[in-house]
Amino acid sequence: VADPVITLTTDFGPGSPYVAAMKGVILGINPRARILDLGHSVPPQDLRHAAYFLQNAIPFFPPGMIHVVVVDPGVGTERAILYVCVAGHQLLVPDNGCWTGLADDLTNGLTVIRLTEPAYWRSPVSWTFHGRDILASAAAHLSLGLDPGKLGVRAGEWARLETPGPQWQARGVAGAVIFVDDFGNLITNLPADASEKLPPGARVVRVGESNVRPAWVNTYGQAAAGDLVALTSSSGTLEIAVVQGSAARRLGARIGSEVMVTVE
Amino acid sequence: VADPVITLTTDFGPGSPYVAAMKGVILGINPRARILDLGHSVPPQDLRHAAYFLQNAIPFFPPGMIHVVVVDPGVGTERAILYVCVAGHQLLVPDNGCWTGLADDLTNGLTVIRLTEPAYWRSPVSWTFHGRDILASAAAHLSLGLDPGKLGVRAGEWARLETPGPQWQARGVAGAVIFVDDFGNLITNLPADASEKLPPGARVVRVGESNVRPAWVNTYGQAAAGDLVALTSSSGTLEIAVVQGSAARRLGARIGSEVMVTVE
Amino acid sequence: VADPVITLTTDFGPGSPYVAAMKGVILGINPRARILDLGHSVPPQDLRHAAYFLQNAIPFFPPGMIHVVVVDPGVGTERAILYVCVAGHQLLVPDNGCWTGLADDLTNGLTVIRLTEPAYWRSPVSWTFHGRDILASAAAHLSLGLDPGKLGVRAGEWARLETPGPQWQARGVAGAVIFVDDFGNLITNLPADASEKLPPGARVVRVGESNVRPAWVNTYGQAAAGDLVALTSSSGTLEIAVVQGSAARRLGARIGSEVMVTVE
Repeated sequence: VADPVITLTTDFGPGSPYVAAMKGVILGINPRARILDLGHSVPPQDLRHAAYFLQNAIPFFPPGMIHVVVVDPGVGTERAILYVCVAGHQLLVPDNGCWTGLADDLTNGLTVIRLTEPAYWRSPVSWTFHGRDILASAAAHLSLGLDPGKLGVRAGEWARLETPGPQWQARGVAGAVIFVDDFGNLITNLPADASEKLPPGARVVRVGESNVRPAWVNTYGQAAAGDLVALTSSSGTLEIAVVQGSAARRLGARIGSEVMVTVE
Repeated sequence: VADPVITLTTDFGPGSPYVAAMKGVILGINPRARILDLGHSVPPQDLRHAAYFLQNAIPFFPPGMIHVVVVDPGVGTERAILYVCVAGHQLLVPDNGCWTGLADDLTNGLTVIRLTEPAYWRSPVSWTFHGRDILASAAAHLSLGLDPGKLGVRAGEWARLETPGPQWQARGVAGAVIFVDDFGNLITNLPADASEKLPPGARVVRVGESNVRPAWVNTYGQAAAGDLVALTSSSGTLEIAVVQGSAARRLGARIGSEVMVTVE
Repeated sequence: VADPVITLTTDFGPGSPYVAAMKGVILGINPRARILDLGHSVPPQDLRHAAYFLQNAIPFFPPGMIHVVVVDPGVGTERAILYVCVAGHQLLVPDNGCWTGLADDLTNGLTVIRLTEPAYWRSPVSWTFHGRDILASAAAHLSLGLDPGKLGVRAGEWARLETPGPQWQARGVAGAVIFVDDFGNLITNLPADASEKLPPGARVVRVGESNVRPAWVNTYGQAAAGDLVALTSSSGTLEIAVVQGSAARRLGARIGSEVMVTVE
């Protein structure tokens, strides 16, 4: 069988030794672990960014792999650290809700364990780097075949990060930007076919304070460079983009910016 | 034998889940694949940057490895996706020419196949993320030992990205910046010995609008911090650099900026 | 046994093909090598950043692994390239002192070899890319089981990068910022308990030109977003941070900025 895979997703950025320290801890416990970077440029403490990232990355992995997530504004406080198994995907994650959207998307069984067993942590545990001292260590032990139940106790509740759904109105539908990718494309929580469900008339999209009339296309190449377009994102919702440009910069938008599609 | 290697080169940037999704797709098809990041910071849709990147990375790999390249302004349009085997290096790449400079550099046999067989793709294929739905998936199948011929049909033509060569004149030679690295060093398409081939006299280098007189050195440490120098780049052409600084910033240069070496 | 691990730490940045070329060279020599990125965003030629990075990453790895470090302002000059084995950690590193702090932290045996044997290098060696032509190549040969003694000759001296310790005064202690992480947290060389060792009175921290009165906490979550705090860093020294913000930006601080804790 293939050696076990542990993936890493953090907001540590590219310049600090924190990710490297986690890799060292993992290999110190399980030298056969295959470590895979998913991304370390989640904006600092940005749980909504992390939530979208996980929802659009983890489901593509085969079940059984171990995913360590360190976006952790509450490090060192009373917030718990969780082992989550959802549809076979195993996560180690601070209890801040960044994983609950992922679990809502998946229909299979859910197991949540609160980590309480320090035998699987480094000692002493620093106040500010549980990624290294608890999460990486526990992940490595899991990758050796440890029964997840040994990590702690079943959890009955946990923090949730709610993403409100779109609001339908007579002549429009209101939602928000839920992700901005590195191209500056704006991923919204509006259904991709929102426009088709509205009454006849010209479509106006409001993003933050801007009212725009994007071309409704299937893909970027169907419009000219610099054109503002609306299309179905690769995650299936409505996306606002500038062809070979940045809609985020053009429209001054970011995660949380209001988006509304209306009929004139 | 070693498990198969699949490398990834994209313009997706460090913050989005797109690269992670591709990794998941690959491991879902071939859990033994060894995934290697080459780089995800090709500037968005910058085919010239991608071309130089590939020319200066792929030839150093041993033959037989699989290289997935996703710099794809035409995603979802009629542009093809190609399997290319050149000198034993296997690439999966959109048909936009970013690989043709690499092939021109290598003298061995060339096989080009246009991907037409959806059995090796994810289904449905999104309009905007062929990296995940076609390229990563096909690469993973190849890594399992699939005959590349099963992916599609032999292609007889493909897009080319031409890089014009240097223009020799009586008292100088004109070319362009073909790459800017993260130090801000300017890699040109001029031969490293351009200066030696010119008639006697003081050398002036024009980069864009700036006329400069660099020190002609073998390496950065032969001049002082802040000095402008001309030297042989690690790819063998003429490079303009600022010691412990950025020539790109100093001279306002980027890919495509004209460079001319003349004799006064 | 597990396949050998080679880690890479450079200042090449994310956009250039230099790291990719090194990976190709390694796999060309040892197709079984497991290549692990530690970080490629050390600021250009910043030896102090690299030194802290190594001190806070390498000790977490198990002994026996091979760590390639390419932060190399002196590339192509007479500066040596070293094989260092300290407490079982094997490094290949330019002789510029960025590793000596790491070695000072570890008490076990130290072996230093100056690379002189071109049989383990690529040929020809470029003037400006020893990372590819010497360090990656030598690392790959080591990973095949080569006796390190074959790489060259024992070195009796090498460059050192000195980090002056804190200076105690009657009513305070003076030191410096030794690292700035990607959150903008300022890691100092002052002992974490500096404040406790001073006489009674209100504590003032001067960072560069700013006098501040941080909250003294155990972890970020004990203060409000935006608050300036002082705490024990994950490396054990005094850290100045802004909760969910950047102390580096707030205080205009960077590596080398003076830090002083005094009693009013």
